[in-house]
Amino acid sequence: MPINRRWVLAQRPQGEPSREDFHLERIDISEEAPQGSVLVRNRYLSLDPYMRLRMNEGRSYVPPYRIGEILGGQSIGEVIASGDPDLAPGDIVTGSGGWQDYALLPATTVRRIPREGELAEIALPAWLGVLGMPGFTAWIGLSLVGAPVTGETVVVGAATGPVGSMVGQLARHAGARAVAIAGGAEKCALAREYFGFDAAIDHRANDFPQRLAEACPEGINLYFENIGGPVLAAVLPLLKDFARIPVCGLIAHYNEAIRPDGTHGQGMTAAALMREVLVRRLALRGFIVSDHQTEHARFMAEVAPQVASGAIKGLEDVVEGLEQAPEALAGLLRGDNRGKVVVAINDA
Amino acid sequence: MPINRRWVLAQRPQGEPSREDFHLERIDISEEAPQGSVLVRNRYLSLDPYMRLRMNEGRSYVPPYRIGEILGGQSIGEVIASGDPDLAPGDIVTGSGGWQDYALLPATTVRRIPREGELAEIALPAWLGVLGMPGFTAWIGLSLVGAPVTGETVVVGAATGPVGSMVGQLARHAGARAVAIAGGAEKCALAREYFGFDAAIDHRANDFPQRLAEACPEGINLYFENIGGPVLAAVLPLLKDFARIPVCGLIAHYNEAIRPDGTHGQGMTAAALMREVLVRRLALRGFIVSDHQTEHARFMAEVAPQVASGAIKGLEDVVEGLEQAPEALAGLLRGDNRGKVVVAINDA
Repeated sequence: MPINRRWVLAQRPQGEPSREDFHLERIDISEEAPQGSVLVRNRYLSLDPYMRLRMNEGRSYVPPYRIGEILGGQSIGEVIASGDPDLAPGDIVTGSGGWQDYALLPATTVRRIPREGELAEIALPAWLGVLGMPGFTAWIGLSLVGAPVTGETVVVGAATGPVGSMVGQLARHAGARAVAIAGGAEKCALAREYFGFDAAIDHRANDFPQRLAEACPEGINLYFENIGGPVLAAVLPLLKDFARIPVCGLIAHYNEAIRPDGTHGQGMTAAALMREVLVRRLALRGFIVSDHQTEHARFMAEVAPQVASGAIKGLEDVVEGLEQAPEALAGLLRGDNRGKVVVAINDA
Repeated sequence: MPINRRWVLAQRPQGEPSREDFHLERIDISEEAPQGSVLVRNRYLSLDPYMRLRMNEGRSYVPPYRIGEILGGQSIGEVIASGDPDLAPGDIVTGSGGWQDYALLPATTVRRIPREGELAEIALPAWLGVLGMPGFTAWIGLSLVGAPVTGETVVVGAATGPVGSMVGQLARHAGARAVAIAGGAEKCALAREYFGFDAAIDHRANDFPQRLAEACPEGINLYFENIGGPVLAAVLPLLKDFARIPVCGLIAHYNEAIRPDGTHGQGMTAAALMREVLVRRLALRGFIVSDHQTEHARFMAEVAPQVASGAIKGLEDVVEGLEQAPEALAGLLRGDNRGKVVVAINDA
């Protein structure tokens, strides 16, 4: 009888999450799958900024994790036992396996990863990054607000992460100028040299707003918002009339405590932001990729062959061992990672 | 040789505009119109909140008024002399006549008001309100973000004003529930009884947020933003997922000084607003009606017959005398008006 190691939320983090906020449980499980389910042995776990948001209390787009609840997340694993005729032991699937060794999942919620043809050449972790939720987020966000066209300038933060790097590559393929915002010289070099951004600006530089302005001499047509805070403040004055802003995340704020009045953080007022919305006739649109699953097949058909051919690149930062997951998430929120953070779940 | 009285900006107002911020000039003019122009004797001048915004310095969607510049604005007047074969003396036209008795306008920028058929029954001031820029603003704003449909709840502020009252009527005609926000019991009664809103809430009431929540038991699908400030703060928690927010104005902030850092006012942070954009997947869209002139003919064809038949109602608050314009604008910004503010320009 195998043992399932699983991370649960021990307490809600204050600020940056730390080891004490998590608890690793070990329980026995049986290698069975009831009808309609599959038992999956997780091999890779995706870590994503939204997980920190779910550790806070309060209204969000997904319910917050409960204390004692197994932490959720996308995973790749091997089917061990199947209660569904379309899935067989040995199949490699993606699904919401969570922070654990084994997951019993509804068969309808997992997707088989192709292991034949050109797509079989794609390394497994990429199915959590450039071809996973982050890549799909980039693709759907651009489509929702009007994809970039030739001559436009597109700016995205966390630009070496899996969402930002995909936004940049899609923008470049569309003929737009792609400007990266990233933390530090190494990531800026990665954005330019590996992902092909036209320019990359270090948001830690003292003169960041000025450098960003110099990198966008024609202004900004599309700002893909996944950061918030001072980066948004630097972008706002550069926006062109009718600029589009898909909003998929606000990682700068996820570690902040929410005040009782619903506000949090310092900086720009809502009034100042609304003034820009009006004066520049901006289109802001918040979105969550899970609302757009009907578009997923189209995303796969368009993007997966480009990943297989190398026309679109992914980059995964693989952390070895499920026991490293809490520290890896904290590092992701600090920006320590280099590309998409994936935990390799080895045998205990 | 007639005398033209014209209001110019004497100095930039600090807070609420006062008489000293304006200067009334008198100059002689000749009753001639060069080729391509028309000389119009203004009869009605529209006063609108955006005019206060143009008195501030700084970037906006239209250039600020210069000191000494004649104050601009939509007007209705009679053609006195014409340098265009399609316009004749005696024609009644709308155009950007400004705060003055006479205006020399490019012939291509004026529109003739129909004086035959059922549309001739419409009182002239209505062509500056329900059929003017404000009515068009309401109509285009709803069309840009997805017009309301049966069963939805639409909320609008300044609801007895020409934009808000049109939003409410269009929402009701589409089968939506229309909730008015207005200042004081009298305006709330007007919103319900004259304009047909399903509910009207006084934003001056101490328990305004709670009353608004009670008036929107199903939440808010569309908030037509023309106020900002505390009203937006009360609306935000009530927004349903995927709510749409066309942004056409922020009258609560127009009297505020802009700080050197570009922020102004107190209250909610931009971070808190962005969080709602993300979590509720909101679509915010700033717009300026002048960007959408290609839709104007469609607006007229659809709405003018309904105004003529009484299916859509306007309400004008006519102030007698060009000399009253500065005080009338200050009153409009305080909310003293009852409906669309129009200045009747009588002979001096």
